[in-house]
Amino acid sequence: MTTTSVHPAWLPTEAWRPIGTRRVRVDVTGTVRDEVRAACALHGGELVTTGEADLILRIGGADGYAITRERHVTTVSSATHAGLLHGLFATVRMGESAFVPGPRIDSAPAFARRMLDHWDNLDVHPVMGQVERGYAGGSLFWRAGALRTADLPRVRDYARLLASIGINAVALNNVNVHATEARLLTDRLPDLVTLADVFRPYAVRVHLAVTFAAPIVLGGLDTADPLDPAVRAWWSVTLAAVYERIPDFGGVLVKADSEGRPGPFAYGRTHADGANMLAEALAPHGGVVHWRAFVYNHRQDWRDRTTDRARAAYDHFAPLDGAFAGNVVLQVKHGPMDFQPREPISPVLAAMPRTRLAMELQITQEYTGQQRHVCYLAPMWSAVISGAPAARELAGVANTGDDPFWTGHPLAQANLYAFGRLAWDPSLAPETILDEWITLTFDPDDAAREALHAIMDESWRTYERYTAPLGVGFMVRPGHHYGPDVDGYEYTPWGTYHFADRDGVGVDRTVATGTGYTGLYPYPWNEIFESLADCPDELLLFMHHVPYTHVLRSGETVIQHIYDTHFAGVSEVEAMRERWQRIKIAPDVHARVSTLLDEQLRSAIEWRDQINTYFFRKSGIGDIRGRKIY
Amino acid sequence: MTTTSVHPAWLPTEAWRPIGTRRVRVDVTGTVRDEVRAACALHGGELVTTGEADLILRIGGADGYAITRERHVTTVSSATHAGLLHGLFATVRMGESAFVPGPRIDSAPAFARRMLDHWDNLDVHPVMGQVERGYAGGSLFWRAGALRTADLPRVRDYARLLASIGINAVALNNVNVHATEARLLTDRLPDLVTLADVFRPYAVRVHLAVTFAAPIVLGGLDTADPLDPAVRAWWSVTLAAVYERIPDFGGVLVKADSEGRPGPFAYGRTHADGANMLAEALAPHGGVVHWRAFVYNHRQDWRDRTTDRARAAYDHFAPLDGAFAGNVVLQVKHGPMDFQPREPISPVLAAMPRTRLAMELQITQEYTGQQRHVCYLAPMWSAVISGAPAARELAGVANTGDDPFWTGHPLAQANLYAFGRLAWDPSLAPETILDEWITLTFDPDDAAREALHAIMDESWRTYERYTAPLGVGFMVRPGHHYGPDVDGYEYTPWGTYHFADRDGVGVDRTVATGTGYTGLYPYPWNEIFESLADCPDELLLFMHHVPYTHVLRSGETVIQHIYDTHFAGVSEVEAMRERWQRIKIAPDVHARVSTLLDEQLRSAIEWRDQINTYFFRKSGIGDIRGRKIY
Repeated sequence: MTTTSVHPAWLPTEAWRPIGTRRVRVDVTGTVRDEVRAACALHGGELVTTGEADLILRIGGADGYAITRERHVTTVSSATHAGLLHGLFATVRMGESAFVPGPRIDSAPAFARRMLDHWDNLDVHPVMGQVERGYAGGSLFWRAGALRTADLPRVRDYARLLASIGINAVALNNVNVHATEARLLTDRLPDLVTLADVFRPYAVRVHLAVTFAAPIVLGGLDTADPLDPAVRAWWSVTLAAVYERIPDFGGVLVKADSEGRPGPFAYGRTHADGANMLAEALAPHGGVVHWRAFVYNHRQDWRDRTTDRARAAYDHFAPLDGAFAGNVVLQVKHGPMDFQPREPISPVLAAMPRTRLAMELQITQEYTGQQRHVCYLAPMWSAVISGAPAARELAGVANTGDDPFWTGHPLAQANLYAFGRLAWDPSLAPETILDEWITLTFDPDDAAREALHAIMDESWRTYERYTAPLGVGFMVRPGHHYGPDVDGYEYTPWGTYHFADRDGVGVDRTVATGTGYTGLYPYPWNEIFESLADCPDELLLFMHHVPYTHVLRSGETVIQHIYDTHFAGVSEVEAMRERWQRIKIAPDVHARVSTLLDEQLRSAIEWRDQINTYFFRKSGIGDIRGRKIY
Repeated sequence: MTTTSVHPAWLPTEAWRPIGTRRVRVDVTGTVRDEVRAACALHGGELVTTGEADLILRIGGADGYAITRERHVTTVSSATHAGLLHGLFATVRMGESAFVPGPRIDSAPAFARRMLDHWDNLDVHPVMGQVERGYAGGSLFWRAGALRTADLPRVRDYARLLASIGINAVALNNVNVHATEARLLTDRLPDLVTLADVFRPYAVRVHLAVTFAAPIVLGGLDTADPLDPAVRAWWSVTLAAVYERIPDFGGVLVKADSEGRPGPFAYGRTHADGANMLAEALAPHGGVVHWRAFVYNHRQDWRDRTTDRARAAYDHFAPLDGAFAGNVVLQVKHGPMDFQPREPISPVLAAMPRTRLAMELQITQEYTGQQRHVCYLAPMWSAVISGAPAARELAGVANTGDDPFWTGHPLAQANLYAFGRLAWDPSLAPETILDEWITLTFDPDDAAREALHAIMDESWRTYERYTAPLGVGFMVRPGHHYGPDVDGYEYTPWGTYHFADRDGVGVDRTVATGTGYTGLYPYPWNEIFESLADCPDELLLFMHHVPYTHVLRSGETVIQHIYDTHFAGVSEVEAMRERWQRIKIAPDVHARVSTLLDEQLRSAIEWRDQINTYFFRKSGIGDIRGRKIY
C-alpha cells in the first residue's frame, strides 16, 4: 500500500494543488508496463500492482481514456501509455470529484496531434535573440549555441507540464533555421537524442525544424532540388540516421520559400514536390512533414494595390489540394495574415479537403501584448477552431521559456493551459478552461476567483479595443511589434496596409471592386464578407474601405467607434489594475503582475492616444462625447 | 641628391597623383629636426639638408606655413613641425604650380583645432555594431574588443590621410562609452599609447571619449559627483597617468546627461561643474575637455506641445556662459536638432560669447544617405560655418572605416576632404574644394571632371528635394534612419515631430503662438524666423505650422512645392546615374558607384512616392501637373 501525489509543476512554486494522498493501483500488461511505472515514479508516486487502491490505472480501452468512479475505486483505462498518462492527469484536474462515484467519463482528443512549436534558436540571433518572439526569458533547451545539459531536470518538469495538458508533440527549434540549428540533423543530433529521452516518458514526441537547403549546407551537394535523386537519397539516409537514434522521432517542420527561407521555388518545383520528397524519406519510419503554408511576397510594393497578402497562402496552396502525400501535414495559420488579434479564418482551411491540415495558433503573444499585457486568448481560439472543422491537427507557437513563471507574465500560463485543453476538447468553454486553470494554479477563495475571471475572461476583447480597430490589423511598431505605430507598416514591402486617408480607411478585398479575397470563401461567407451591410463589424476594415462616417451594424460611425472603443479599452485596463491591487494571491505572482499591469496601462493609453490622434488628424471629425484627443 | 614623391594614400589604389620627382631640401633647426626627418621618410622620401633642391622645407615663420616660389627653388616655411607638414601637403595639392615662380603664399588655419570624432566601438555593439552610424565597414582601430595591431600600417596611412587635409586632432572612440571603451583610461591605456605613437609623426593628437561615471565604474568610488574631492583626485591621478604615457594627449570628449549617458545632473550639479572638474585635471598637462551640448529630453511625451527639443541645448547651456574654464570647449551641433539635411544654425552658437565653442558637423551620412547616396555636404557646411563666426574649433564625426575605399561610397571621400579643407580655410568655395579633390583623386579629363561636378556639386540640394520638405526634418525610419517613414518619429518620445494633419504641417516655434524658439536668435534672425512672410522657404516648416495651401516666397503652395521638389529630386538622381554610366574612371570605382547609384535611385523614388502619397492622402489636394501619386 503506497500513496502518490501527482501534480504537474505548473508553477515553479508547485502551486498546483496535489490530489492529496490516494492509493493507486495500476493494471498494465505487456511492453508499456515499465514505461508507465517509470512515468508514475516521475510523478512522485509508485505503482501498486496488487491489493487495495483508490485509483486504478488500466491499459485497455479506447484511444484517449476512460475513468470509472465506483464506490471504493476509480479506474483509468486507456489503450495506450499516453492515454493512461492523460487520464491520470485528468484525475488531477478533477480533484476530489475523481473519487466520488459518478458516471463513467470517456474522453478522446479532438485533434490527434497537439503540437507545440518552439521558435528557439541555438545561437543567440543578433536581432531575435535566443528565442524568436520569445517573451519568457531564454530558451529552456538552448543557451548560446549549446544544449543546457545542466538544466535537463527543468526540461523534464516541462515535459510533465505539457503532458498534463495533453500536448503530445513538440518542435524544439525555430522554423527560421540558421546555421547551427541546421546541424541538429547531423553532427548535433546527440542534443536532439538527449531531449527526446527526456520527453519520451511523457509521451511527447520530438520534431525538428529543418532547412530545405540542408542537402547543400550539410550534405555538400550542389542542389536541394526535390526531384534530384541525390537529394532524395541524402534526405533518406540522413533521416534514417535520426530514427536509428530516436525511434519515435515525430518528423520535420519546414518553413520554405517564405520570408527569405530556401524552398522548392528555386528549382521550379512546387511545394508539393518539396513536401513529398521529405514525406517519402519519413514514411518508412512513421514520421510526418509539417509544411507551413505561411508563404507570401514579403517584398511587395506598397504602391501596387492588386497584390493582396491575405490571398497568398490560398493562391499558393489551394491548387495543390490532393497533391500532398498522406504523411504531409499542411500547417496553416488560423488567419490569412499573421496572428493579429482579429482576423477572419484562413480560407485555406476550407479549400483543401484532400489535404491533411493543421491549424497554427500563436500562444506566444507577439501581436497580443508580448506577455506584458493580460490577454487570455482562448475565446479567440475557440471561435477559430470551431470555424475550421477541416483542420485535423492543432499546432501552437510556444510562449514558454526559462522565466521563473515559465511564461513571463504569470497569467499567460493560462494561454498555454487553454491551448492544450482546447486541442483535446474544443467544445470546452473558454471560461470553464480558465476556471480549471485558476483552481489548479491558485486554489483561490471566491473573491480571488471572481477577480481573476473579471480580469481575464474578456481581456482579449479589451486588448482588441485599445489597439488597431475593426479588424484592420497591424499598426504596430515595425520589427519588434510592440506598441502602436499606425503608419509603421503602411509604406513597407510587407503587404500589411490600412490605406487610411482623409476620407476613410480599410482594405477593399471585395470581388466587386477590390482584390477578390472575399471570393475565396465558401458560401455563405463569401457573400457575407462581400456585403458592406452584412460583414461583421469586427472584420469590416479587413474586408472594406469605408468613409469615417460609415455607420456600423452597431449603429455607430466608424470614427466614433474608434474613439469609443479606445477610451473603453483603457478604462477596462484601469479596472483590471484596480481589481488586481485588491486581490489576495501569492506575493511573487502579485508583485510581477502588478508591475506588468502598470506597463499594460501605460501602453494602452499610448495606443488610445496615438490611434485617436491619428484618426482625428486625418478625418478632422471630433469625438461627439468631447473627450481629450491630442 | 634624392627624390621624393609625397602623396597621401587617398585611395587604396594610390590614385592620388604624386607630384612627380622633385628634389627636396629641408632647412630645419632644433628639436623638431628628427621628427620632420622621420615624417619625410614616412612620406616616401629623404631629407636633403644641403645642396640643390627644388623644394625647401624651412621651419621658422608663422603658425601655418608660407610657400615661396622662386625661379629655381620653392620654399615651405613654418614655425612648427605640423605647419611644415601641412605646407608640404599644400605643394602636393598645388601640383606643378608649386614649382612655377609666383607670389608668396601665406596660409594659416581658420580653426585652431580641426578634429575628427570617431564613433567607433571597441566591442561590437548589439545594435550599433562596430562603428555607431558607420557606413564604411568596420573600425580602422578596433575589432571585436581588441586593437587591430596587425593593421597598424593602415592606421599610419590614415594618419597621413588626415594630416594631408589639415586634421590635427582625433577622438578614437564613440561618445557613447560602453564598458570596454571606458577602460581605455586605465588598463586598456596601452592601446591608446600604441595609436598615439602612430598618429604623432603626422601631428595628429589623440583624444579620448570618456564616461562621466568613470570614477564609479573604473575607480571603485561610490559617486561621480564633480564636487567630491575624492572624485576630483581620481580624475587628476588617472589623467596624469595618461600623460605619463602620452605627453601630447589631446584631452577628453564627454557626452553627459544625454540619451541615457551619466552626467552631473545625477548629483544636482551643472554641466559647468562637470566640465570644469575635468578641465582642472587636464590643465597642468595642456589638455582640453570637449563637452557636448547635445543635451535634451529624449523621453518627451508627444502629446506635450510645450516642450521643444530645438530649444534644449540653448536652455541648458546659454545660462552657463562664462562659467566654463578656459580649457573647456563646448561642442555644439551645427543645428538645434540632429544633423538633418536642413536645419537653422544652432542659436547656442550666438549665445555664449564668453565660452570657447566648437561647431560639430556630421561627415558620416547618418541622415544624408548613409554613404549609399551621393551627397556632397560642403555647400551646407560652408553656409553654417560662415553663419556662426563665434565657433573657434571645428569637429566632424568621421565617415571612414576599413572599407577599401575608406568611406564606403567612393564619392563620400569628398566630404572628408572638404571637411579638412573648410576647417583650414572656410572661405574656399565648395566647388573649388571639390575640384581639388577630383584632380587629386582621379586626375580626370575635362569630360569626366565636368561629369563629376554635375553629379556632385548640387547633390546635397538634390537629396534635400526628395526627402523631408521645407526644413521639417526627420521622417526617416526610426532606429537606423535610412529611407522614409513620415510618421516614424511622430508619436515617439524623441521630440522630432511634424504635426501634419488634414489641414497643414509644420512646427510652430514662434514667440507669438509657438514654443518661442525663434526668440532665441539675435536680431535680425529672431524677426526673420518669426515672420511667416520673411522666413526662408527652406526653413518654413521648421519654424511655422501652415496650411497646405500656404503660398511660399517662391510663389508656389506648400503642397505643390512638395510634389514639385520630389519629382525634381528623382529626375536629378536619374540624370546623375546616366552621367555616371558614361563617365570614364577607374573600373573598381565605377562599379561600386554604379551599384550605389541604383540604390540611390530606388531610394529616391521610394522617398518621392511615400512623401507625395502621404501628403496627398492627408491634404486631398492633387498635383496640378497631374503626375502619378499613388
